[in-house]
Amino acid sequence: MNTDWLIDEVRLTPILIADPPLLNTQGVHQPYTPRLIVEVVTRGGVTGIGETYGDGKYLELAEPLAAALPGRPVSDVNGLFALADEVCGDSRAADERVDAGGLRGVQTADKLRLSVVSGFEVACLDALGKTLGLPVHALLGGKVRDSVEYSAYLFYRWAHHPEAGERDDWGAAVDPAGVVAQARRFAREYGFSSFKLKGGVFPPDEEIAAVRALAEAFPGQPLRLDPNGAWSVETSLYVAEQLKDVLEYLEDPASGTELMAAVAAGTDVPLATNMCVTTLAEVPEAFARGAVQVVLSDHHYWGGLHRTRELAGICRTFGVGLSMHSNTHLGISLAAMTHVAATVPNLDYACDSHYPWQTEDVITTRHVFADGRLAVSDAPGLGVELDRERLAVLHRRWLDDDGTMRERDDAAAMRKAEPGWSTPAIPRW
Amino acid sequence: MNTDWLIDEVRLTPILIADPPLLNTQGVHQPYTPRLIVEVVTRGGVTGIGETYGDGKYLELAEPLAAALPGRPVSDVNGLFALADEVCGDSRAADERVDAGGLRGVQTADKLRLSVVSGFEVACLDALGKTLGLPVHALLGGKVRDSVEYSAYLFYRWAHHPEAGERDDWGAAVDPAGVVAQARRFAREYGFSSFKLKGGVFPPDEEIAAVRALAEAFPGQPLRLDPNGAWSVETSLYVAEQLKDVLEYLEDPASGTELMAAVAAGTDVPLATNMCVTTLAEVPEAFARGAVQVVLSDHHYWGGLHRTRELAGICRTFGVGLSMHSNTHLGISLAAMTHVAATVPNLDYACDSHYPWQTEDVITTRHVFADGRLAVSDAPGLGVELDRERLAVLHRRWLDDDGTMRERDDAAAMRKAEPGWSTPAIPRW
Repeated sequence: MNTDWLIDEVRLTPILIADPPLLNTQGVHQPYTPRLIVEVVTRGGVTGIGETYGDGKYLELAEPLAAALPGRPVSDVNGLFALADEVCGDSRAADERVDAGGLRGVQTADKLRLSVVSGFEVACLDALGKTLGLPVHALLGGKVRDSVEYSAYLFYRWAHHPEAGERDDWGAAVDPAGVVAQARRFAREYGFSSFKLKGGVFPPDEEIAAVRALAEAFPGQPLRLDPNGAWSVETSLYVAEQLKDVLEYLEDPASGTELMAAVAAGTDVPLATNMCVTTLAEVPEAFARGAVQVVLSDHHYWGGLHRTRELAGICRTFGVGLSMHSNTHLGISLAAMTHVAATVPNLDYACDSHYPWQTEDVITTRHVFADGRLAVSDAPGLGVELDRERLAVLHRRWLDDDGTMRERDDAAAMRKAEPGWSTPAIPRW
Repeated sequence: MNTDWLIDEVRLTPILIADPPLLNTQGVHQPYTPRLIVEVVTRGGVTGIGETYGDGKYLELAEPLAAALPGRPVSDVNGLFALADEVCGDSRAADERVDAGGLRGVQTADKLRLSVVSGFEVACLDALGKTLGLPVHALLGGKVRDSVEYSAYLFYRWAHHPEAGERDDWGAAVDPAGVVAQARRFAREYGFSSFKLKGGVFPPDEEIAAVRALAEAFPGQPLRLDPNGAWSVETSLYVAEQLKDVLEYLEDPASGTELMAAVAAGTDVPLATNMCVTTLAEVPEAFARGAVQVVLSDHHYWGGLHRTRELAGICRTFGVGLSMHSNTHLGISLAAMTHVAATVPNLDYACDSHYPWQTEDVITTRHVFADGRLAVSDAPGLGVELDRERLAVLHRRWLDDDGTMRERDDAAAMRKAEPGWSTPAIPRW
């Protein structure tokens, strides 16, 4: 193999990016949230970029992996998993140190490692594509569609963070009218025609009212509601019954396979998940019990773009629907999401993306949604370029942070407004 | 995209290759067997090669697909499936025309089409790799091992076909001593250390005796027995009980998910299959019922190398073992098998290959097994080159054939020795 394709250097840059005061069942987004930017530089002088979660526990795993990469072929992405297992510490020992829950689903050491690997895999594929003159989708066997549909990701939100002034002109959305106004603007500015509301924030009847208001405003258009597992089986079934005529799917109404299976048994509304099934290990039981009808893939969780394609194959084989989940992310990950989504025949639903909420980015040219879709780039690699000036600014912010923003903590952010707040026990309703 | 990477021309060359008189439960291999060689030529002048089954029903499907490819990017292998669906006729109509059984498992129009696509996919990946200077394994994310282990594929056989003289010096093997002698030569010449016997030929007690003789000759080494679904559940359980101390797995003892599940329920010997699960559609029920513990992948059946990797992901997810199946094939497919096998972390067992039985080939340099393994090539593409002179000779044989060899028919071949023979009903024992 051409030695130009060997990895010469890997750079890790943790950053803090501005995040609006978006509400969820655990609290509210902090004013800034961490991301980690991965750069893989080949001996041929090509730089590939990736991004992943930036909290400390991810950074800790990324550092030894970055150190182990130089000298390896940039094309060798299948080998990243065994390498991560080897250099990132013994997973069994680590499992005990890791949270068993949260908005990102179960958090085992294996899954954290996969999230880290995903950032490196995307950076390697970007570098390889740029080296070869091929788009990332072609490295995955080629696109089967020219554009990928995204869904409007509606949030209950405040006009501004408690400790800061307004950073955007979206205003507050804390009732059906606010949600509909937000959706109308999403539809007008980006052309989205399906809508997902992040729920679990207000009592279920208020959220039912918001979804019904959306259904009136956008008759016949696909609607989704996602309370992040905040409801009991009984509440989930009540909401499903109230909204069965307008919901495309209900996302993670209850928490875990057991409860999701109980909900699924009581309603014909399809259940989607990015919490109950977030690792391959969770698939067999959840599928066997019919706990989920739609899996929201996320290349960060699943270990990159190749693994996301495997997940798609699993869903296709078992007749389970496929869509795509999003946490706060920047344009590198959106490019990666779009490339892999373009290669999957069974992408049955519009993908989620927080991207419209992110006003800051590290790429030189921001993605633009048109008719609710992103065109699939045929430029080499991901088709995006790193804006080093912006990267430096956002890294400086991370360096200057006193530590409070370096770990995403929605409950801490909520305490700025409600001093007694702690992460609610679930089921919350 | 560089227009050099567009497909300029596709050439299909049906050939007949010599095949020894290998016995199975349906009859015996004919003196010649058909294969189809696929060449994909890019505008840049690079030729990629693939091979697949060569019977008329495959050729019929390959022709419209070949005609539809020029002008498409050679990197676009994911798109081959929809293209084949479009140009190769309506699958539902075709389903009715297709056999429901046989040594290759269920034969639906979908599966025939996937077998045809596999030859094109491999040829495209070979051309793409040669264009880019990358081995095929790197186009699949990179190898995770430097060599792939194969198993000795033992057959009951005659010294020569009824209508011809001896073509090789292997002699007959129709009893335990003959099988052991064959295995010793395989071990000596190729270094194989695991052994599979194609069974279903003689009454089960004779085949049990052969496997026990192998166990004595090769103590502790992995042994497999494959009667191609010829046994009843009762017979399968009897054989499993007799051989449980020496079998690595029992392959397709009975036919179909129902019977395989019944066998699996009665023995701890793992059951492998390349007949009960040969399409994604067969996976859910077989896995749910515990009918198979090892799936023998075959990139021809499953639609190519990317789909084989998906199957590997499915098996990994469901805790089902993975090995690799082989029908009669040449060096192009062996190269493809080795590349994809090299990229799969969970290749749990040595792969099958008929290759040592094939004295003819269409590549310039034959593969050589050493220590029972093939080294994974890092040369561009598959790492093999077409021998056009040999291809022309073997194609001439196909042209000159009166039609009797162009369709594999093991029962017809058997009738040369036993005039009254017809494909035995199953269960045969």
